[in-house]
Parts: sequence; structure tokens; C-alpha cells
Amino acid sequence: MKRVEYPAAIKALIAQLKRMPGIGPRSAERIALWLVLSRDARPGEIAAAISESARISACPRCGFFAEESSLCEICRDESRTPEVLCVVEQPTDILPLERTGMFRGTYHSLGGRISPLDHIGPENLRIEALLERMKIEAPKEVILALGGDVEGEATSNYLAELLEPFPATLTRIAQGLPAGTGLESADELTLSRALSGRTKMAKPN
Amino acid sequence: MKRVEYPAAIKALIAQLKRMPGIGPRSAERIALWLVLSRDARPGEIAAAISESARISACPRCGFFAEESSLCEICRDESRTPEVLCVVEQPTDILPLERTGMFRGTYHSLGGRISPLDHIGPENLRIEALLERMKIEAPKEVILALGGDVEGEATSNYLAELLEPFPATLTRIAQGLPAGTGLESADELTLSRALSGRTKMAKPN
Repeated sequence: MKRVEYPAAIKALIAQLKRMPGIGPRSAERIALWLVLSRDARPGEIAAAISESARISACPRCGFFAEESSLCEICRDESRTPEVLCVVEQPTDILPLERTGMFRGTYHSLGGRISPLDHIGPENLRIEALLERMKIEAPKEVILALGGDVEGEATSNYLAELLEPFPATLTRIAQGLPAGTGLESADELTLSRALSGRTKMAKPN
Repeated sequence: MKRVEYPAAIKALIAQLKRMPGIGPRSAERIALWLVLSRDARPGEIAAAISESARISACPRCGFFAEESSLCEICRDESRTPEVLCVVEQPTDILPLERTGMFRGTYHSLGGRISPLDHIGPENLRIEALLERMKIEAPKEVILALGGDVEGEATSNYLAELLEPFPATLTRIAQGLPAGTGLESADELTLSRALSGRTKMAKPN
């Protein structure tokens, strides 16, 4: 006896949805049935938005999101100074830095960090492009704003060595106690970094 | 100072993904970035599968999934008897029943159940179509396979009254102890239904 199943179009839809991160077989089935059954689903709009995403590419200069291979919004902004270059892991790391409103230089996204376990070596990152920019733009300061985990540290150290021949001052963002938390919730590594990174306080007038 | 944000195409994509059931703002952003950044994403394939889902419609006879408004796989199967008609709430309820391999009749999906809280009354369900089938197909038995919750019960009772004038025998699926569980995990209502639905055991030879 032939077993009754979903029509091929639903099975294909479930298989495609299941590929998306965080979507398991159950969620994929739920979304697929919603797309097919719900009057509010308007699958055409969702499909169009997904197709449109192919127009997004990495900014050829800094690696942030740009549309149709043109320079990104940040690189097009002529009020920003190329004298300070901030290196980040992912293009998504640029948004939280921008939200601080404190940085008016330019960025360089590496597209990841060195991680032997994930088979990501320096050659898989946008490091060649960074060296190229160092030569052409000759920034006065390079800020390393990579993660505080093992891979971020390793990548920072690798870059520090690589950028040593350039005249730019090399800095890295501070590691220490997060705002709004007490010492009791900080782990030892964070506290030891907060200690060694201590800064001199101005004397009260 | 103008705040840097995602390009419009990414923002539109996040907004569309967020409409899908079970997808919150965080998951939507994660999926959107995956679609844009990952080499494995192949967004065109996902968009195509979603577009294709518009081709799925309800079988005009039983309400199960069918392609391009034709009869569904079950209704096209001539080896199935129209003498037994099994009424379910949703087209998705048909698959688990089919998996039992025990039913060779036809189905009728109501497309929901009576639920005043959700503003779903009998007029929103495929009840007219069911009465039409009762007249034309004149099944000998109608099995009500609706849910065991309050709305399912209410819908079953409503249908029982409505189908009373027809000569068909009206049955409903049994409620009782789920397979593989002990009495200690059954709630009172399940147990009381299991008790009142008790069946006579054959005497051992």
C-alpha cells in the first residue's frame, strides 16, 4: 500500500526551510504549512525579499554590507576620516560600534577570525586587502576590535605582528568589567584583564 | 549624525522573515544574515520553493493538499471506498491517520473546528461541503476524528446533530489511555473517558 504523503511541492519547501539556521524539521513543517494554509502568509512577498537579498554584497573596500557591489554607506561618507582604521571580525560587528556614536573613522571587516578547528586560516580572511589598505590609505592608527575569546585573541596577535612594519599606532579595544555589572559576576579572566588594563584617574579639582 | 544601519534590502528581509510562525526578531536577523553571508545559503532555491507553495491548494472534494486545484492523491485513488468517510479538523490530521495503515475510506477536512474565542463558527468551516457529500456519496459510516479538547468535542457534538437525518452510522474515534503510558501519567478526564469507553475482551480459548 502506497503511503500518503505531502505533495512534492510541500516536501521540497520543508527541505529548503530546514536548511536555514535554527530551523529544525518541526519548525520547517510548521512554517511550510503556514505558508500553504494561512491567508496572511503572502508567500510571494517572502520569496521576493529572499531573492532580493542576492543583491547584497560585501563592500569591496571595508567588507560591510553594500548593495550591488558599490561602496557601502560608511565608505561613501566623506566626513569620515581614513586616518583611523578599526578592524573587526564580522560586518555585523560594525553596527554595535556605530551605535556608540564615538567612532568617525573607517572599518575593515576580516570576514571571520583565525580558527584552526573550523579550518579558517589567515588566507581565508580579508587580510591581504587590509595590508593593501595600509599601503594606500596609510592610517595613523589601527584599532583592533576583535573578540575577547581565544580565536579573537589569536587573530589580534597575528595581526599585531603583521602590521608591525607599518608606521601606524596599533591599539586594541579595552577588555574589562562590563558596564552595569559588579565584580561578583565577573569571571577571573575578565577581572585579570580589567586589572592589567587599569587606567589612571584624573585628580579631582 | 546619521546612524548606520543594515541596507534596506536586509531590513526588508528581516521584516518578512519575522512574519513566519515561531520566528522572532533575533532568529529573523540570524537567518537574514545567513542568507546574505553564507556561501551555502543559495537563497534562490529557498525563494523558489516558497513561490512554488502557491501552487498547493485544498482538494475541492476532501480539503487535503492538492496541486493546482486538482483532486488530491487520496481522492484520486480508486481503490479507496467512499462508504466510510472520516471527518478531521485539519488537512494535516490526515497524515497521522494514514500512517496507521488501517483506514481505506475517504476523508473530509473541515479546515478547523468551532471556536467562538477565535471567531470561528460553523459557517467558517467546510460543513456545507460535508453535507453535500453526504447527499451525493451517501457513505454508510461517518467517523468523527476530531480533537479531544473542548473545541473538538463541541464540533463533534454539533456535527452529530447535523448528520442525524442521514442514514449513515455515526462513530467517533476512541479516547483513552495513550499507548505505552501507565495510569499514573494519565489525567482524570482521559481516565474517565477510557473507563466509559471500555470494550469487552474476547475470552481466551
